Amino acid sequence: MGKVSELRSEAAEAKASRSIVILGATGSIGQSTAAIISGAKGAFTVAAVAGGRDPQALAKVARELGASFAALADPAGYKDLKEALSGTGIEAAAGPDSVVEAALHPSDMVMGAIAGTAGVAPTYAALSAGRTVALANKECLVCAGPAFMRQAAAMGTRLLPVDSEHNAIFQAMNDANLDSIEMITLTASGGPFRTWTAEEIAKATPEQALNHPNWSMGPKITVDSAGLMNKGLEVIEAHYLFGIEAARLDVLVHPQSVVHGLVHFTDGSVTAGMAAPDMKVPIAHCLSYPERINTAARRLDLAGVGSLTFERPDFERFPALRVALDALRAGQGLPTILNAANEIAVEAFLDKRISFHAIARLVEQACEQAQADGIARDPESVTEALEMDQLIRERTRASLAKGNVATLH
Amino acid sequence: MGKVSELRSEAAEAKASRSIVILGATGSIGQSTAAIISGAKGAFTVAAVAGGRDPQALAKVARELGASFAALADPAGYKDLKEALSGTGIEAAAGPDSVVEAALHPSDMVMGAIAGTAGVAPTYAALSAGRTVALANKECLVCAGPAFMRQAAAMGTRLLPVDSEHNAIFQAMNDANLDSIEMITLTASGGPFRTWTAEEIAKATPEQALNHPNWSMGPKITVDSAGLMNKGLEVIEAHYLFGIEAARLDVLVHPQSVVHGLVHFTDGSVTAGMAAPDMKVPIAHCLSYPERINTAARRLDLAGVGSLTFERPDFERFPALRVALDALRAGQGLPTILNAANEIAVEAFLDKRISFHAIARLVEQACEQAQADGIARDPESVTEALEMDQLIRERTRASLAKGNVATLH
Repeated sequence: MGKVSELRSEAAEAKASRSIVILGATGSIGQSTAAIISGAKGAFTVAAVAGGRDPQALAKVARELGASFAALADPAGYKDLKEALSGTGIEAAAGPDSVVEAALHPSDMVMGAIAGTAGVAPTYAALSAGRTVALANKECLVCAGPAFMRQAAAMGTRLLPVDSEHNAIFQAMNDANLDSIEMITLTASGGPFRTWTAEEIAKATPEQALNHPNWSMGPKITVDSAGLMNKGLEVIEAHYLFGIEAARLDVLVHPQSVVHGLVHFTDGSVTAGMAAPDMKVPIAHCLSYPERINTAARRLDLAGVGSLTFERPDFERFPALRVALDALRAGQGLPTILNAANEIAVEAFLDKRISFHAIARLVEQACEQAQADGIARDPESVTEALEMDQLIRERTRASLAKGNVATLH
Repeated sequence: MGKVSELRSEAAEAKASRSIVILGATGSIGQSTAAIISGAKGAFTVAAVAGGRDPQALAKVARELGASFAALADPAGYKDLKEALSGTGIEAAAGPDSVVEAALHPSDMVMGAIAGTAGVAPTYAALSAGRTVALANKECLVCAGPAFMRQAAAMGTRLLPVDSEHNAIFQAMNDANLDSIEMITLTASGGPFRTWTAEEIAKATPEQALNHPNWSMGPKITVDSAGLMNKGLEVIEAHYLFGIEAARLDVLVHPQSVVHGLVHFTDGSVTAGMAAPDMKVPIAHCLSYPERINTAARRLDLAGVGSLTFERPDFERFPALRVALDALRAGQGLPTILNAANEIAVEAFLDKRISFHAIARLVEQACEQAQADGIARDPESVTEALEMDQLIRERTRASLAKGNVATLH
């Protein structure tokens, strides 16, 4: 009996073993992905890993996970990567094309966790090759949502959302018919300025904006969170990902970051996706979907949390959210434009060249200017979206260079 | 184009029309069921209705819903029912057998909303005839859970839970593999004595116990709620309904009654079933499952509610919850025994023959006595369960009659 059930469980394990490519293996999501894979012995194998600029960190994760291929985006790191992997049998490669090569390595699932627009091309390549993609990169959908969703439908593949809000909604929706859904709510922690006055927020410093109460993330997304621009970008993502129009997408401020998303059905039922604020939870969910694995992620203890509070977002104090929702409603490629302008604006804010206040103004200006100049239109492909992205970055940099001080400070 | 889509929507409606039998049509759940069916024009037809003792109310609901058969449990009401339905073409019948006849009337779904043990036999008959049963009667599972679940499995039919907690959990589970579930939490409002001291609770009056903060229900269940016995009974129901052991069933006190149940998964994800406290929501969910209809039920407004709080239940102040969970863990038919003894105890409390305090003591005593006397055993059938139920009622009445005042006051 013992033998038989042992064999059965081995067979089950062998069957469950899923091969993964990790794009962005040296970043925060990549590291958590690696930790989950290492912890779930036998459930996963790693086909390939890709990183940005750190050859040592990439070599380390490639060795630990037993990947067969490691790609570094930065060509200058090739020699160091090659050296660090010598004798391991792991193939080393470098340059942007090698990251796409990693994405196309045979696998069951690609974790798309490269930050920024650098993630768009390799993630799209994986999707186009028919891979199931666990999507942790925001730009894929915000910058090129229609093209990504069209390609996913054409290939019959699935985009599994890693972002905690979208993952929670994905779980709460559970493939429900869109007709049965009345509203989808994304929650926002409200960030460090939740209780600040408009005047205080206007002159917030980068140090203050980077002091997020619940999540530890990179500087760009932390600044986005402080102004609720991040929530606006997430509503745009949700629109494309779930195929649901802006009017049925809603935002609630929920400072405890425990309820990440809610699905309101036409019969009055609401299902909520919840978890302790730990990215390991949605990552593990995507990696093992539709099964579930056991993780060492933090567990939600509601009695310990005690009280969950909810309030409507304040569009006056957080104009970035309004600007983002306006862009979604307007269409015409404005989400692509918003995203590009916002990256430049946040960069300028972190460099102390503009005030916090000016971020949303600069982004709104970029959107209005693009419409006025007749260049605002839905990008038909990922290439067009990336071209639009570049163009808007240049335009935004230019308007910053000749900056109107009254507007920007 | 308009013509074609009209025809399509008519065809879809015709296809969706589902025939329902309502057992307990004149009670609170029955009335809400009738309201939903009337509101969802064309989605449902009503095959038969059954009521308890009120011929006029039964005739009214039968006429309104266009039922073809109306059964009154009380044989004495036959003449009045017949008269009230004369000329309508609706067949009238009375007596307990006629209620079973109503249950067996050809239909797609039976709403089992008869209160108390009177609901067990007709609901079991419907299940045994292969009907999908929307279950609003607690006694079916608490008194005869194993027999009900065995029969449902044997017939390949489904029990859909109407109780708000179980319905919320059912929605949040969404047919997940039990292996992927770490814990299921039922919430409890905490009732009117949530903040009272043990001494205050001990001498609470029926008037105080009947003053429930969130739900308007019958007196028996309201008293059960005040002492958390109701939550204990619901945990027992959940055990049978979801096939999950006591160790993975948990209770949290949540005074706002907005989160009704939570499913905690092994990866750290939690899905919650929520709704405004309105029974129309779970009723509508069951009636249209797996589709969803549009209802006029109250909508959940989290920003309006503002704050949701959670605390561990206090087993010292609410011993009834401990007694119920002990019975579930002990097995040996103790849930059946607990349920029967509790009905008699609550009756005695409402008649001011025993203190609030004494309810849990009397129930615990009945469980211990049954074990000591060797009569505690898992009932093998619904008949055995109902026999056990009768026996325990008699024994509990007898021990009340010779009541030890020190224990009971």
